[in-house]
Amino acid sequence: MENSFALRGDICYSESLTTLSIHPNSYLVCVDGVSAGVHDSLPDEYKHLPVINYEGHLITPGLVDLHMHAPQFAFRGLGMDLELLEWLNTRTFPEEAKYADVTYARAAYTRLIDDLKNGPNTRLGVFATLHLPATLMLMEMLEESGLVSMVGKVNMDRNSPDNLCEASAQQSLADTRRWLGETADRFANTTPILTPRFIPSCSDELLRGIVELQKECNLPVQSHLSENQSEVDWVAELCPGTSCYGDAYRNFGLFGGEVPTIMAHCVWSGEKETALMAEGGVFVAHCPQSNMNLSSGIAPVRRFLNAGVRVGLGSDMAGGCHNSIFRAMSDAVQASKLRWRLVDSADKPLTVEEVFYLATIGGGSFFGKVGSFEPGYELDALVIDDRPLLPPFEAGIAERLARVTYLSDDRHIVRKFARGRQVK
Amino acid sequence: MENSFALRGDICYSESLTTLSIHPNSYLVCVDGVSAGVHDSLPDEYKHLPVINYEGHLITPGLVDLHMHAPQFAFRGLGMDLELLEWLNTRTFPEEAKYADVTYARAAYTRLIDDLKNGPNTRLGVFATLHLPATLMLMEMLEESGLVSMVGKVNMDRNSPDNLCEASAQQSLADTRRWLGETADRFANTTPILTPRFIPSCSDELLRGIVELQKECNLPVQSHLSENQSEVDWVAELCPGTSCYGDAYRNFGLFGGEVPTIMAHCVWSGEKETALMAEGGVFVAHCPQSNMNLSSGIAPVRRFLNAGVRVGLGSDMAGGCHNSIFRAMSDAVQASKLRWRLVDSADKPLTVEEVFYLATIGGGSFFGKVGSFEPGYELDALVIDDRPLLPPFEAGIAERLARVTYLSDDRHIVRKFARGRQVK
Repeated sequence: MENSFALRGDICYSESLTTLSIHPNSYLVCVDGVSAGVHDSLPDEYKHLPVINYEGHLITPGLVDLHMHAPQFAFRGLGMDLELLEWLNTRTFPEEAKYADVTYARAAYTRLIDDLKNGPNTRLGVFATLHLPATLMLMEMLEESGLVSMVGKVNMDRNSPDNLCEASAQQSLADTRRWLGETADRFANTTPILTPRFIPSCSDELLRGIVELQKECNLPVQSHLSENQSEVDWVAELCPGTSCYGDAYRNFGLFGGEVPTIMAHCVWSGEKETALMAEGGVFVAHCPQSNMNLSSGIAPVRRFLNAGVRVGLGSDMAGGCHNSIFRAMSDAVQASKLRWRLVDSADKPLTVEEVFYLATIGGGSFFGKVGSFEPGYELDALVIDDRPLLPPFEAGIAERLARVTYLSDDRHIVRKFARGRQVK
Repeated sequence: MENSFALRGDICYSESLTTLSIHPNSYLVCVDGVSAGVHDSLPDEYKHLPVINYEGHLITPGLVDLHMHAPQFAFRGLGMDLELLEWLNTRTFPEEAKYADVTYARAAYTRLIDDLKNGPNTRLGVFATLHLPATLMLMEMLEESGLVSMVGKVNMDRNSPDNLCEASAQQSLADTRRWLGETADRFANTTPILTPRFIPSCSDELLRGIVELQKECNLPVQSHLSENQSEVDWVAELCPGTSCYGDAYRNFGLFGGEVPTIMAHCVWSGEKETALMAEGGVFVAHCPQSNMNLSSGIAPVRRFLNAGVRVGLGSDMAGGCHNSIFRAMSDAVQASKLRWRLVDSADKPLTVEEVFYLATIGGGSFFGKVGSFEPGYELDALVIDDRPLLPPFEAGIAERLARVTYLSDDRHIVRKFARGRQVK
């Protein structure tokens, strides 16, 4: 009976990419952390459950951040006048190197967790650093928070500064095995995900070893793809004979298929790469704010959707400055409008309904049955007190969702559940 | 001695477009609402003044919103899937028509003022509606708030719906005269500004009458320019024989020169129009978020600056959803990066230092000596408690300003002064 209750309020979730399922003043039933659906009145079989009454509040699924770097939270908003490769070398790598020191890591990660607990996200795809102790500590802290996450110890054995580079492929793989040994079955809500940083940081030998580990342990994989033009050119040099960046991952066996895979960014993915992503069931983590901040560009999300590619949203902390996936939703709409206006008028802008889908079921599907209130889905839910955001005229639930998307902050999230467990 | 004090804290203002003037743990002296400069220690002549101690806080000039529509606050975040002309017809005009009812207007404006008082803006260029009673009430409420604003009763006598259209040019002008009679010398901090909505909404006769009024009363003017391509095409049709939209205003005598003028947007201003703006000293109100939300595009701000055009920032509430000009600052940087990447790599992106200048002195200059702490400037100041935003490493004042720009909200603004008077 733990994690079983009914939530009463104005309930809204995605029925499809373009359609909202809307239930004013209804009951969302949670049994053992799993949704038993939304009901106009509480069915007899659930009458014994405690009812948590949030009449007049908006209740939506928790949001999914498919891509963020935990150690980068510390410097969000700084050094934003650089492009990707320069930003990595002057800002990111020096900061990540500090996480060799667990005292520093604890202080920094404590603030991150606090921010994450207060915001609207319930699921996270997380890059840690290459350091074992700090990564383990981060996972303990995430588990403690109640959030549900997949966390990666980063692999990087080349083209990186001395103080943030694994000594060899063997050492990187040995550390990864040790980390997996310590974490694979340790946590309920915090699980490991293989995390080769990106092709420029990983030798061929390392990538081959990661594929072996993947097969052995049947783990998901996350990495970066086609974020920046200089990066794309560099990968073409590093991997001669490949038709595109995604093809380079695919040649190693790291591009979907039987390997559940998140690729972040995909700003410069062309037709061929898009087809490979669709074919392999690769999840794109679309990170619009980061792609603005690092002058990367605007990912062709409409084309991905048309091609049947699976898409979720990411904050890409600290390429993006804001953890909230509500912010990523409005950023995604705004970026798509600029792309439509300035790049290709064939690709229609995204709507609020569409980015809500991406932020819930879109990214949530990477975690299983997540991101909906249909019966059988794991119950991640937000209770949003949007009364301060109501306009001075009658507004329906779809309009209230739009207001929350553009205007809400952590003050409006008054309660949050992940897998039926209260996080806030 | 009213409005005389010293503020102690970490002080920062723009010395030039690209340079910050930075004063850790210093004293900003305010005498009768005017800055007497920033000092390392309190000079003897000011030792009698009360010292307001905000050690460890960031102190900056108040921010200037050069362009916002007060009645549109009510529906911000809604109907964002439309372009300008359709959005005006289906969302904006029906909402503005409601301001014929002062009860509705009072409820809506009360919330707006509350939001404005809490945020970082101290100066505003405001469009009201065409209604006299509601506009007068708005001005009373703004005066009461302590904010400093120029407010316009809107003129519109054509191409507008029946319930939001003045019956004739004569009636529009007569109403404007009546409004000026009631407001011209009535308030200390709230003054009228002539506000023809934009050329499509104003007959030639009306624009000619406004110019006469301008000469008679020596008032500033605000309007819209080159926001959207369909709008630009429409103006070309309405004003045959003009070389550009700005030239159409100029033909009427409404494009700078002796007339202090704000033109909002200027997304599609070409070389000719840019030269006319520079020549006439026209202020551009750059509204990056609105230009994304309404799919308008990205204004070529770098070109304006290179050409010597005066530029400030605007929220364009409710084309933009957020009043805070800190948000407009980060939006402006992000938009300029996308423009650099996707439109023209000759136009370098804007930096945080540059948008801080635009948000303070840039727009402030329209109000006189406003936007700096140099001696003689009117004292608008923010006290920002940015301690929750400090990174876990040593950060200088410039870095703290960047963090505030990207990450702050109204909770961080703990005190606010306009003309030396406390607003928050």
